[in-house]
Amino acid sequence: MSRAYNFCAGPATLPESVLQQARDEMLDWRGTGMSVMEMSHRSDEFVEIAETAENDLRELAGISDDYAVLFMQGGASSQFSTIPLNLLGNKTSADYVNTGIWSKKAIAEASRYGTVNVAASSEADGFTTIPDQSRWETSADAAYLHYTPNETIGGLEFDFVPDTGSVPLVADLSSTMLSRPLDVSKFGLIYAGAQKNIGPSGLVVVIIRKDLLGKARKETPTMMNYQVIADNDSMYNTPATYSWYLAGLVFKWLKARGGVQAMGEINLRKAKKLYDFIDDNDFYANPIDPRFRSWMNVPFTLGNDALNGDFLKGADARGLLNLKGHRSVGGMRASIYNAMPEAGVDALIAYMAEFAKERG
Amino acid sequence: MSRAYNFCAGPATLPESVLQQARDEMLDWRGTGMSVMEMSHRSDEFVEIAETAENDLRELAGISDDYAVLFMQGGASSQFSTIPLNLLGNKTSADYVNTGIWSKKAIAEASRYGTVNVAASSEADGFTTIPDQSRWETSADAAYLHYTPNETIGGLEFDFVPDTGSVPLVADLSSTMLSRPLDVSKFGLIYAGAQKNIGPSGLVVVIIRKDLLGKARKETPTMMNYQVIADNDSMYNTPATYSWYLAGLVFKWLKARGGVQAMGEINLRKAKKLYDFIDDNDFYANPIDPRFRSWMNVPFTLGNDALNGDFLKGADARGLLNLKGHRSVGGMRASIYNAMPEAGVDALIAYMAEFAKERG
Repeated sequence: MSRAYNFCAGPATLPESVLQQARDEMLDWRGTGMSVMEMSHRSDEFVEIAETAENDLRELAGISDDYAVLFMQGGASSQFSTIPLNLLGNKTSADYVNTGIWSKKAIAEASRYGTVNVAASSEADGFTTIPDQSRWETSADAAYLHYTPNETIGGLEFDFVPDTGSVPLVADLSSTMLSRPLDVSKFGLIYAGAQKNIGPSGLVVVIIRKDLLGKARKETPTMMNYQVIADNDSMYNTPATYSWYLAGLVFKWLKARGGVQAMGEINLRKAKKLYDFIDDNDFYANPIDPRFRSWMNVPFTLGNDALNGDFLKGADARGLLNLKGHRSVGGMRASIYNAMPEAGVDALIAYMAEFAKERG
Repeated sequence: MSRAYNFCAGPATLPESVLQQARDEMLDWRGTGMSVMEMSHRSDEFVEIAETAENDLRELAGISDDYAVLFMQGGASSQFSTIPLNLLGNKTSADYVNTGIWSKKAIAEASRYGTVNVAASSEADGFTTIPDQSRWETSADAAYLHYTPNETIGGLEFDFVPDTGSVPLVADLSSTMLSRPLDVSKFGLIYAGAQKNIGPSGLVVVIIRKDLLGKARKETPTMMNYQVIADNDSMYNTPATYSWYLAGLVFKWLKARGGVQAMGEINLRKAKKLYDFIDDNDFYANPIDPRFRSWMNVPFTLGNDALNGDFLKGADARGLLNLKGHRSVGGMRASIYNAMPEAGVDALIAYMAEFAKERG
């Protein structure tokens, strides 16, 4: 088929123009006679690709020189251990906010390295809302506070940045990175697996305030030591060069589209359109507190679960792919990251309307 | 320019037909309307890609069901810590053989987790030879013995597999994987960063005998726990999907070329041709004991170091790229992995002859 609309939660759709450029440069990057994936990571050509990507990301996200930007491997899941290993320092506990499956994974891994104080949880509410910060029970001596600004599976997103005073704020921004403006200066550390809004899997971007470097525990694997990675410009060993290059192409695409301010407006419009349709149509439902609905991941259920298979089959036939919800929650989920065109959301809504009319 | 001959040590040249296929499938893999890098790692399509790659690798390398094959992230450098964390078990020491820069890096990292007994070293010989196994001083209670079958920087390669009896043998095969036949059943664990003979960087292949699983220390990051990765078919988290796909294309290419038996013959011929030329020409020299010269990485020096710059400039002009030796040893280095065509070696020799004649 021609290009489909791919609503996968990650790895996710990429901008078509980015893939076209990668295709055109596959055998010969700018007359070098080499693919980017064949280049030495220490060559002038690749170092330029890498630095340009970092600079574009700094410009897009507004990252000051107070922060190091690291291009690491292992995905966000590796960061679940890397963070406590590096940030607990001489403290023994950290605060975590539990808002869904990804929060819980981060909590489980951190608990292996220190005491986790769950400062707030919406588990009793089925993870349909964000606990009001006035009720959070933070600990006096936490090394940091970790939260998940957007829960990819639940479709729950913070509409505020927690205020943690002098305690470093740590955020898993995997599924919402660069989708709307964010004040990076409020964070101690931000991490994001690339395979949603940045590029292909196999890359995780870490933005860390420099005063938090150099606190790694002695048992920290060298490749997980932020200080080592920062000191070596993310080239202590061979980085995931091709993923880094593709991330750079995505950053250029974002800049050409007007950056995160413009993306935020488009993303809000896409999300509002879809949620409005779901709310107005009796056949579909979304369980999340409207204030905290994710702009990126939109779970929804049909009025009759027995029709799920038919819904997915009809969607596939129209080139609307990967709408099946995560196995842990069921139903459907439409992930509408930066690279999902508004026309894709329109096509999804048109199909949903048709299906509800015929089968609802 | 058209495709160059790229002698980079890694990331390294890839087969042109593999890159062509990747290019042609970039926007739409087999009518799915998606790039492979946009596919869910849990989709039927990607699982088929992943399983086919593993099965082809098993067939190529002759890997029995006694072994798990893992597709991990972080490169060989991450394995330097992953190995002691997983294999020391209830023992406290391991044997390491020191034959060059990569051995030393593995030793340094392992020393952070236990006692390293350097069973043999050729450091006193400037890493130009392999110590005879009859003189190795192994320890009685080693958890495993680690060695580096091919030293990418020094250009030194074992022509035998050490006999370690019941002690598991662990090998960093990054730069020699699949370049010649190897009896996997002699090993406890083999690991190989992909960016030399397998595919793009951001992927490391681990082949581990199943009885060695399940011994990870409690502080092992979950993403470094071989048992967890094996239990989840290397999909505990999102793997480096696009690199895995490309590795699969390389495996198909190797099978079509006749597998490791045929590659071994071609590689030996390529290496012999280059070493014979170096030995026969007074202007060039290679310092390695002829018995242990690497088939993959051929370091050489010119008769006059002051001509190094001119040599490299002339090579670049002819599309013979990345011949500069590693900064730690100087001189030149030609890496001639599987994907380097014999014609590339011929072109290099022709240029070397011409340069020696004119400037030597």
